[in-house]
Amino acid sequence: MKLRDLGEFPFLRRLRDRVPADPRVFLGLGDDCAVLSLPGMTLLTTDAMIEGVHFRREWTSFSTLGEKAFAVNASDIAAMGGEPTFALLGLGVPQQCEVEDLDAFFNGFVRAAEACGTALIGGNMSAAPCLMLSVTLLGQAPHGVITRSGAQVGDDLYVTGTLGDAALGLRLLQEERDGPAAQAVKARFLCPAARLAIGREVAARHLATAMIDVSDGLLQDLGHLCEESHVGAVVEAPRLPLSVEYRALLGDQDWSGALTGGEDYELLFSAAVEHRTAVDALTQTGGCAITRIGCIVPRAEGLSVRGPDGATYTPAYAGYDHFR
Amino acid sequence: MKLRDLGEFPFLRRLRDRVPADPRVFLGLGDDCAVLSLPGMTLLTTDAMIEGVHFRREWTSFSTLGEKAFAVNASDIAAMGGEPTFALLGLGVPQQCEVEDLDAFFNGFVRAAEACGTALIGGNMSAAPCLMLSVTLLGQAPHGVITRSGAQVGDDLYVTGTLGDAALGLRLLQEERDGPAAQAVKARFLCPAARLAIGREVAARHLATAMIDVSDGLLQDLGHLCEESHVGAVVEAPRLPLSVEYRALLGDQDWSGALTGGEDYELLFSAAVEHRTAVDALTQTGGCAITRIGCIVPRAEGLSVRGPDGATYTPAYAGYDHFR
Repeated sequence: MKLRDLGEFPFLRRLRDRVPADPRVFLGLGDDCAVLSLPGMTLLTTDAMIEGVHFRREWTSFSTLGEKAFAVNASDIAAMGGEPTFALLGLGVPQQCEVEDLDAFFNGFVRAAEACGTALIGGNMSAAPCLMLSVTLLGQAPHGVITRSGAQVGDDLYVTGTLGDAALGLRLLQEERDGPAAQAVKARFLCPAARLAIGREVAARHLATAMIDVSDGLLQDLGHLCEESHVGAVVEAPRLPLSVEYRALLGDQDWSGALTGGEDYELLFSAAVEHRTAVDALTQTGGCAITRIGCIVPRAEGLSVRGPDGATYTPAYAGYDHFR
Repeated sequence: MKLRDLGEFPFLRRLRDRVPADPRVFLGLGDDCAVLSLPGMTLLTTDAMIEGVHFRREWTSFSTLGEKAFAVNASDIAAMGGEPTFALLGLGVPQQCEVEDLDAFFNGFVRAAEACGTALIGGNMSAAPCLMLSVTLLGQAPHGVITRSGAQVGDDLYVTGTLGDAALGLRLLQEERDGPAAQAVKARFLCPAARLAIGREVAARHLATAMIDVSDGLLQDLGHLCEESHVGAVVEAPRLPLSVEYRALLGDQDWSGALTGGEDYELLFSAAVEHRTAVDALTQTGGCAITRIGCIVPRAEGLSVRGPDGATYTPAYAGYDHFR
């Protein structure tokens, strides 16, 4: 059924019936505003996914799109060491859109949200020339927030998981390439996971001096962390965590993708040297690898990458900017 | 200067420098999330404006667009009897967009926000095929919230200001018509005001049993109020408040626009009959007219409109649905 045949309000009523009641929410979907009580410090973040810019419909299912729309926002909460709590969802939808596709998107989003205790409390829907998914996420930080601005000279620099897979996956989607390794990196682009558990553990154990998620590429996001902390950093390229699939596709020595590829949604954090054992322990229990990739240096030394010979390694470009 | 020449991050840094510090905000623009303390009940709403759907660039200035993007969200806060406090702003921007235009949009938005004590605390920007403005607004309700669901049979029905001007203004923009009356109703469409002061007074004096803002047309929004309150309503068409300009353009007897035209952002509320004097008093002090337009009836009687002869008046259509 086309959305224009069902109509906006009947569609919204159907969605509303599928959102479970939540005792934390005084007033949820269906009034002019949501109303709720938010004790303690509240985290807020908003991000959008736009058809033709962030995704193409032929690459993904609507359900997976819903999961990703949640995950990219949850990643910002993870990067503060927080936990997502409530979501608002704005949908811009072409008139010829199928109701079943929107249902699938909505189910994917709500499933991903519920999996980490997040309730959908509000939203809006309007016509649009292409699919536009705008998410606002609230969170809490029971162990305090980890900002971008606390990195100290001498700190170690860590990253979770592996880097460069999502950007490589995007390239292989664009080039329509296939095979098991290609499938794996494409999945990293299409359905990323927010590192919520690791982020929370890092906060709970007070391990990090600064943290950010890697959404625009390691160097770009490390640049933001350094700028906010008034420090520089050295990244050891041979230490960068590359997945088996990345190595199979690009070899062991091509660090450009890991340094500059966006959308990995891994966490990058700085930590004092005396926490090395504790960070290693977290790798054992946290469900994903944490790799020490470099260190924080004085601001005057800037941001540099060292190759296997210790000489400066210069990647092809610096990271993603929507407008350059 | 084109945005692609300046780049996303330098542009965002410039914006950030222009947002004044706010003691209520623990962490504002420039980290993964905003962080703040939100005592009491928090209101949340989100809405979007999309080029070609909600506006055309040739109709408006970027500054006015910024003011409207704020106002349409603030109207949802007003409709709960609340006060806006914090805003998040998502921008989807074509690559060839001029930095000066975005600056003007941003200034209009921030000026409108600051005028009612609202701080911009977060946002995002990405490339998009057309301008897309997504706003999330937080608010507080020191006098309690007024939902859509409390209307009682026998209550009076009131609306602020005048109805139908914005939809008429949109039509005249589309038809490229001019003249003083046309200018006035076009301005109602292009730069609506959220009825924050009236909404707050209605809440403070506990006058309303239910309230909603008229964004999709009186009948559509009254339908929502009735549905949530499990009641029906009668609207007396001759009582509908029509502006001098509306009468000049359409005459005194054409109530279709006032009944079904969207984007007026007036407040529609139900109130017990014993509050008539208090509501009248509010008209004197509240800075805008409040007109009694009908009453709440049992649900079985549905929603009806009476013409000057007391017979049922049937407008051309029911109100705005993005997809029908």
